[in-house]
Amino acid sequence: MCELLALNFNQSVAPDISFRAFRRRGEGNPDGWGLAFYADESAQVFKEPICVERSGLSDFLRNYPFVQSQIVIGHVRLATAGNVCRRNTHPFTREHSGREYVFAHNGTLQGEYRNELPLGRFRPIGDTDSEHAFCSVLDQICARGADGWTPEDFEWLHDVFQRVNSFGHFNCLFSDGRHLFAYHDKDGYNGLHYLRREAPFGTIHLVDEDFTVQITEEHTTEKGYVLATRKLTDEHWVSFQPGQLAIFKDGEMVWSRGGI
Amino acid sequence: MCELLALNFNQSVAPDISFRAFRRRGEGNPDGWGLAFYADESAQVFKEPICVERSGLSDFLRNYPFVQSQIVIGHVRLATAGNVCRRNTHPFTREHSGREYVFAHNGTLQGEYRNELPLGRFRPIGDTDSEHAFCSVLDQICARGADGWTPEDFEWLHDVFQRVNSFGHFNCLFSDGRHLFAYHDKDGYNGLHYLRREAPFGTIHLVDEDFTVQITEEHTTEKGYVLATRKLTDEHWVSFQPGQLAIFKDGEMVWSRGGI
Repeated sequence: MCELLALNFNQSVAPDISFRAFRRRGEGNPDGWGLAFYADESAQVFKEPICVERSGLSDFLRNYPFVQSQIVIGHVRLATAGNVCRRNTHPFTREHSGREYVFAHNGTLQGEYRNELPLGRFRPIGDTDSEHAFCSVLDQICARGADGWTPEDFEWLHDVFQRVNSFGHFNCLFSDGRHLFAYHDKDGYNGLHYLRREAPFGTIHLVDEDFTVQITEEHTTEKGYVLATRKLTDEHWVSFQPGQLAIFKDGEMVWSRGGI
Repeated sequence: MCELLALNFNQSVAPDISFRAFRRRGEGNPDGWGLAFYADESAQVFKEPICVERSGLSDFLRNYPFVQSQIVIGHVRLATAGNVCRRNTHPFTREHSGREYVFAHNGTLQGEYRNELPLGRFRPIGDTDSEHAFCSVLDQICARGADGWTPEDFEWLHDVFQRVNSFGHFNCLFSDGRHLFAYHDKDGYNGLHYLRREAPFGTIHLVDEDFTVQITEEHTTEKGYVLATRKLTDEHWVSFQPGQLAIFKDGEMVWSRGGI
């Protein structure tokens, strides 16, 4: 089914708790994993076409102090379109106007999407529906000159995502390094949830394993959102509405539209 | 001064010996390190704006079995243009025509290069002379439609690199995932060397530390080239000629031009 993970905070944070929980989702999604974060305006992407739980690299990164970012995007893959190989593993990245864009998708597009979502200057390296959609969306952003991201551009992007969604199941995470865009499938396929996390944190219990953590005092100035396909912890997770696009920046939800 | 490392082999190889030796070059180049390899048509790039010898990630990767590739490009940085940050760290990557290009540069461009090497669709994320040159070269490749890489395209690329070189010191490594292109500065700045490695390997001694290695029999089918700014081992390294462009593919030098 694939699963998605994202973070957006008011300051650079280590995604250690979320990534620990997310690695458990490799069970059922053994065909690849990826983690992207913005060290600055540039994105570091780690990805491999193997199960995240069996990856020595993902284990190493769990506690690596240089994985710190305001924006993090993760993905675990169950291959539905495209072979199991690195080039078909999410997240995908492209530069446009000196900004590095990151994209991850959950769902499968079908039918005439390759003709109806034409490509321009951005071309897929692999052969997934996901990377095709990413390239097509970026071409449309390029054509509109939407990289300044006004509220009108947000409305427009919502329409673009809804059109992609008309070709199949489509949950996606998308970023330009400043905003985190999260879109939930119009039919509510597979779920997408968010969690507001800020002090006082209380005790957090992971739902996939018997593990409890108390976020320490040094993190009390951190506040923001964690997003995941299914909730990762026993905190107060909120379901996205079907068809909803929510946009996060500096740890706040700055725009939301759609849903019921 | 920055230093460069590259490998091109007839089959996927682990760059463990070369990377071990290359990590020692962090001394004198403490401002960043990067390692790119092609897992398939897509390139995995690891890079950090810290000294390679102090990087836990680079230490982890030394023996990580999934770092395997026919083409590897590495760089250690002494910042001469642009701040010390990840976006200014080499290698840089861009997608063009569904191919992922990787670029690393040693040297500094000066004068009117930003006006004389204009940018088009590819824009720098950071502010180095190197990424500017990479984007400009890719724009020219894009305009020529040179991605099929005929011998005429190789000649043309040699001219393109020589023109970049006219603005300062310029050693570069460049790849589209099939070819490894290596260009040596017209004035011989800082050096660039290559080594043919094939069985029988004999005993290899690293020049930066008291370390000797015997490549085992399981590697006897591996043959190809290792490139480095300065020789890494006591093997038979050959100096590039000033102004030489050499092109490697599947472990063979398939084209070379320039020099005295």
